[in-house]
Amino acid sequence: MTTKMAINAKDIFRNQHRLIRFLEQSNRLCSNQSLKAAQAAQLQQKSSADFEITASLDAQYTSAPEPIKHDKNLGHQFRASQISVRLAAPEQLQPKPDNDEELGFGRLFTDHMLKIYYHKSLGGWQRPEITPLENLVMHPAAKVLHYAVELFEGMKAYRGVDGKIRIFRPDMNMNRMNLAAQRSGLPTFEAKEFVQCLSRLLSIDSEWVPHTDTASLYIRPTLIGIDPTLGVASSDSALLYTILSPVGSYFKTGSSGAVSLLADPSYVRAWPGGVGNRKMGSNYAPTINVQKEAAAKGLQQVLWLYGEDHQLTEVGTMNIFMFYVNDQGEQELVTPPLSGLILPGITRDSILRMTRQWGKFKVSEATITMPMVCELLNQGRLLELFGAGTACVVSPVNRISYLGQDLYIPTMEQEKPVHELIRETLTDIQYGRVDHPWSVVID
Amino acid sequence: MTTKMAINAKDIFRNQHRLIRFLEQSNRLCSNQSLKAAQAAQLQQKSSADFEITASLDAQYTSAPEPIKHDKNLGHQFRASQISVRLAAPEQLQPKPDNDEELGFGRLFTDHMLKIYYHKSLGGWQRPEITPLENLVMHPAAKVLHYAVELFEGMKAYRGVDGKIRIFRPDMNMNRMNLAAQRSGLPTFEAKEFVQCLSRLLSIDSEWVPHTDTASLYIRPTLIGIDPTLGVASSDSALLYTILSPVGSYFKTGSSGAVSLLADPSYVRAWPGGVGNRKMGSNYAPTINVQKEAAAKGLQQVLWLYGEDHQLTEVGTMNIFMFYVNDQGEQELVTPPLSGLILPGITRDSILRMTRQWGKFKVSEATITMPMVCELLNQGRLLELFGAGTACVVSPVNRISYLGQDLYIPTMEQEKPVHELIRETLTDIQYGRVDHPWSVVID
Repeated sequence: MTTKMAINAKDIFRNQHRLIRFLEQSNRLCSNQSLKAAQAAQLQQKSSADFEITASLDAQYTSAPEPIKHDKNLGHQFRASQISVRLAAPEQLQPKPDNDEELGFGRLFTDHMLKIYYHKSLGGWQRPEITPLENLVMHPAAKVLHYAVELFEGMKAYRGVDGKIRIFRPDMNMNRMNLAAQRSGLPTFEAKEFVQCLSRLLSIDSEWVPHTDTASLYIRPTLIGIDPTLGVASSDSALLYTILSPVGSYFKTGSSGAVSLLADPSYVRAWPGGVGNRKMGSNYAPTINVQKEAAAKGLQQVLWLYGEDHQLTEVGTMNIFMFYVNDQGEQELVTPPLSGLILPGITRDSILRMTRQWGKFKVSEATITMPMVCELLNQGRLLELFGAGTACVVSPVNRISYLGQDLYIPTMEQEKPVHELIRETLTDIQYGRVDHPWSVVID
Repeated sequence: MTTKMAINAKDIFRNQHRLIRFLEQSNRLCSNQSLKAAQAAQLQQKSSADFEITASLDAQYTSAPEPIKHDKNLGHQFRASQISVRLAAPEQLQPKPDNDEELGFGRLFTDHMLKIYYHKSLGGWQRPEITPLENLVMHPAAKVLHYAVELFEGMKAYRGVDGKIRIFRPDMNMNRMNLAAQRSGLPTFEAKEFVQCLSRLLSIDSEWVPHTDTASLYIRPTLIGIDPTLGVASSDSALLYTILSPVGSYFKTGSSGAVSLLADPSYVRAWPGGVGNRKMGSNYAPTINVQKEAAAKGLQQVLWLYGEDHQLTEVGTMNIFMFYVNDQGEQELVTPPLSGLILPGITRDSILRMTRQWGKFKVSEATITMPMVCELLNQGRLLELFGAGTACVVSPVNRISYLGQDLYIPTMEQEKPVHELIRETLTDIQYGRVDHPWSVVID
């Protein structure tokens, strides 16, 4: 208890300047002036070296999400109110890690898990269950093991400076998960009910949410097809489950804190007419060996290219952003558009909304090609390149190996780097250092 | 026993004309004349309406396989001689199906399975085990459930007219499986050792190999990554397992015995720089919803197109063949080349070798596009279109729905259809009605 209070007190102290600024700004923005006036005010402050955050953002999507229509033969939905809970016995409880620095990513798991079965033959979704973390038992013909009938989400629970646990924009994850379910011939579900089930799981394992702002509890909702039949067809039985893992930082970075990338156009992650915009397991298996190849060359991640003009699509498992000086001499933040080739990242969406509201520089969704990157580097106009995703928030890039060239990217040399402003603003929201509608407190 | 003998006697009687012809021909081909002379003799017989088979084919590949090089850190291999066997108790044995007509595909399984674990931490491949068919137990973070770290093969065991059990070109399946393992960051293995383990499993469950030439025992070797960690990375633990399923015909066909296809260029199965030429689970999940869409339109399979010129790549889970009259007025059998976009089918390879040896018509590997198909149909030059694969041998196509057009394909109207000659020749080899090096007898 003492430790926890000490950490919270330390956090509050460390962040009080931001809290004060936020409160001042919230007052200004939430007062009676119109949004336009607020934007005008922001534009005036454009030259201010510091960044701004605001609670007036709505939680809309950059591109409107396709609405989820449940299949008419889906059967009944599950209800969070019907959840059954079987707690781990005291002797089953695992020790929590002492040192958040050594957590790594997804190696340790909490004491409990959530399971919700779907059986068409039993009328649809079954009653949600929280159980001790335990092995799954499945028929060796289960479709997930043969045809990759599987999809997942990545979310995080953060321990706020007020001790409360928050999750970030869960509606976005639920929407994306349902879209992936439809694309995989798997059953869809009611997003709100599932978030309530997740909240219940999180409150049971709440002591696993690290008491620090350098770690968090990774949430892995997973949906798999478990029909024990070998036909390549939709699965009439499925399991929606969730495990939790306390995590530190996702990547090992170089000593600089930045990652180096292999950009090899002979490997392509996704293509038009495929499923590159859905978080399906099938998008990941083909990347593993390419990642191995990058590692063998001393590079940390893969920069995925597409097309004859070598368009940048994703980096590792992240969306990519470039901050540069455009042809008009303006600073511009650009990320590839949601063309179907890239995952509609929630961090990506949040960065776009946030930086557009800042009004400090131009923000656009447009194609970036490797020849553009090379030219901008030659002209000294490429300022920063970084990945963005739930696991790492932002991940600066300092090197790309491309067609035998070793491109040095000056991301870490900027005096007030944009990726750092973005990281601080997002983590301020996630760790509750500022109050924001994107952060949902778990009761 | 009486039934079995009756079936064998019936089969032998039904096929004795082929056996006699085969023996005559084998004598001719195996005599001292050169291959060239044999080919010349075949060319002379080109006008003969009947088809020919020969035991003089070697079991080489159409395109030489990439040699399997084991990773230097792989650790030790498994040995078939070290296999442990735990037989099902008498009360665990399942009743065998009475009616082969109702088997369907991959719904029933035999009494035993084969399992071989790989653990890098334990030095490599572990001792192979045959156990009763049982559920797999795995950690909910196992990589196969999240990132589709999985691949498989499809083989069949046939009950020959002599009562012996045969498998077909197993070296081809093993080679393809090892290539898929490499591409997935999973451990490779010694093909011969694995075939010996499979043979042992087949001999234990030998009574499950249907006593008929209208059914067979489907063999599903599967390799999955089971590391219980959420990083997108190679799996240091894996399970190579095999289940067996007595199967009838794979597809429900229309009343004609032929299948109808949806050809929608907005869905793409594979692309350059991807893994369309590897039998990985990740190639299948994205096809399931498209197959559902075809079914909703009353069509039985998907014809996968690629590129702006709408190249035919695969049909359902099969390779595709077209028999037509070419610009020179010759009959020609054509199938798309192994460009990386299509699976290197073993039935495909067998058909190419066999028909090339027949010398009855031109045989080529070349791109086929939908505009070509439409033009050939208009000119009455498209004779047959069919899929080819292990599950169905050949599957004739009689209809394609393409960009709002309903194309009728006269595959079933030919007097002596080539796809029927191919099916008969291949099944003659598979069911041991002729002796052939492609058929491997299981002791």
